[in-house]
Amino acid sequence: MAVYTEVGDGELIEFAAEYDIGEVLSCKGIAEGIENSNFALTTSHGSYILTLYEKRVNPDDLPFFLGLLDHLAVAGIPCPTPVHGRDGRALRQLCGRPAAIVTFLAGMWPRRITPDHTAEVGRALAELHLAGGEFTMARPNDLSLAGWRPLLARSDSRADEVAKGLAAELSAELDVLEKNWPENLPSGIIHGDLFPDNVFFQGGRLTGLIDFYFACNDMFAYDLGVCLNAWCFEPDLSFNITKARRLLTAYRKVRDLSVGELDALPLMACGAAMRFLLTRLYDWLNTPAGAMVTRKDPLPYLARLRFHAGVNGPADYGLG
Amino acid sequence: MAVYTEVGDGELIEFAAEYDIGEVLSCKGIAEGIENSNFALTTSHGSYILTLYEKRVNPDDLPFFLGLLDHLAVAGIPCPTPVHGRDGRALRQLCGRPAAIVTFLAGMWPRRITPDHTAEVGRALAELHLAGGEFTMARPNDLSLAGWRPLLARSDSRADEVAKGLAAELSAELDVLEKNWPENLPSGIIHGDLFPDNVFFQGGRLTGLIDFYFACNDMFAYDLGVCLNAWCFEPDLSFNITKARRLLTAYRKVRDLSVGELDALPLMACGAAMRFLLTRLYDWLNTPAGAMVTRKDPLPYLARLRFHAGVNGPADYGLG
Repeated sequence: MAVYTEVGDGELIEFAAEYDIGEVLSCKGIAEGIENSNFALTTSHGSYILTLYEKRVNPDDLPFFLGLLDHLAVAGIPCPTPVHGRDGRALRQLCGRPAAIVTFLAGMWPRRITPDHTAEVGRALAELHLAGGEFTMARPNDLSLAGWRPLLARSDSRADEVAKGLAAELSAELDVLEKNWPENLPSGIIHGDLFPDNVFFQGGRLTGLIDFYFACNDMFAYDLGVCLNAWCFEPDLSFNITKARRLLTAYRKVRDLSVGELDALPLMACGAAMRFLLTRLYDWLNTPAGAMVTRKDPLPYLARLRFHAGVNGPADYGLG
Repeated sequence: MAVYTEVGDGELIEFAAEYDIGEVLSCKGIAEGIENSNFALTTSHGSYILTLYEKRVNPDDLPFFLGLLDHLAVAGIPCPTPVHGRDGRALRQLCGRPAAIVTFLAGMWPRRITPDHTAEVGRALAELHLAGGEFTMARPNDLSLAGWRPLLARSDSRADEVAKGLAAELSAELDVLEKNWPENLPSGIIHGDLFPDNVFFQGGRLTGLIDFYFACNDMFAYDLGVCLNAWCFEPDLSFNITKARRLLTAYRKVRDLSVGELDALPLMACGAAMRFLLTRLYDWLNTPAGAMVTRKDPLPYLARLRFHAGVNGPADYGLG
């Protein structure tokens, strides 16, 4: 739940007048997202999402994020499209924060994941990777290999509060990742955070991809690693090979994987599990009890990490 | 901010199928209201609000609240209208909670109150009082005179943590209220909580009254007392007589006040200030620091109480 900045009616009406979106009819804070303040904005022209960017987003990254959404929307990716003001700008200030209006996407994120969902996600991810090809801006992935060792160092001394031996296990696993991380796999724009709550469906069809605030340039196979973690484990943390097979097969129908990518999949999935484990671990240890944000348990990512570390090859993901 | 119950896509689609509202397009938790979980529900037929009633609402009161909204909507009051299912029922279960769908009202609540706003509120309040006349169900006001002494008793021992001498001052003021509280003033359905965040405006016109979960049977003049407290004090707690005059004058154009009501206004306003002071005081002393709910400072209601206690008559509210 998150609305960090309250937007007054007067300020909003003045803000909205910079756009060609008609008269403001209502604006309600949405209890979703933990990074920014989001509002369901209804005008005489239709429905929009108004976002005020809060402290956790670097304002210098906003032109990249909004430019990327512009680019992807033109390419037919079902993502929020920034609405540009009469002056051409998509980004301006509201209540002292950077703010933007984007189009509203129909659909709901799925709570009970089926193999049909993962097939849709695989297809959409490949389409996203292809569509990002012509985008000219770039943003490095702060949360990839080079970032993990420093991130672990920030939780190191207290990691064993969460699970005994955790610090040592993660350090050893980082050794493996650092030794084997590939450098020359196909790369481009990745979503970086394509979890179920960032994907909308309607009547079984994927209707929207949202929350591009971790998008960056990195290996496409790493994005698949994120999705294997996000979509293919059951609530009891068992791996569902059918969901993985459907996800990867649907992906390959749109963008086939090279031999190098296939071989690297287990390592990419380990890396992705490490990334979410480390950020959750840090947040877990540093979020005061009773804070307005719900802490997410890091340990399910330790189970995922161990699974991928034990995978022998693509066949364990249902391929081949 | 409040969404206490998360509603899954599958459960929602099944729930919505009981109504004639078309296909569900989206459903987003709204970060407003502290009593219930509210969602902005969009379907192929339009926009609605879905409410799941949480613990603070007594389920036995729900037929009264929903019946009242049905009644008021028919009478032309701009309030949320319950949507009835194909079986005729407006109230059913979702995620183990009582739940209802109501129509969506355009407009935003005003952050900077002007005398034009208070005139609109006065008119709408009188229309509401008249429209409630034919409603056949009844609900006593738990938070009126008989409830205040027990409510104070629950905070008594710690009231002086908030302001020195507060317990004694409130007890003395309760003596005055108990001694003078009238019994025979015109009564009927009152809103009971008509604060700015429960009133929507658009282009200066009042477009909606919401949040009827304190509605009950009580004296109309008491509802005016609530509004004098809610709408006619500036942020520095000074009383704005122009706002009061506009509110009361607009009210009287629709439903005139008897001599008894006019005379009782200061006492009614004292009582209303006492009611909000006592509930806020209790919540202030009993809400853990860092809870998901923002505590509201009770002391601005002490200032209001003192103001009304010093009023000599209707002239001090701008009536001449």
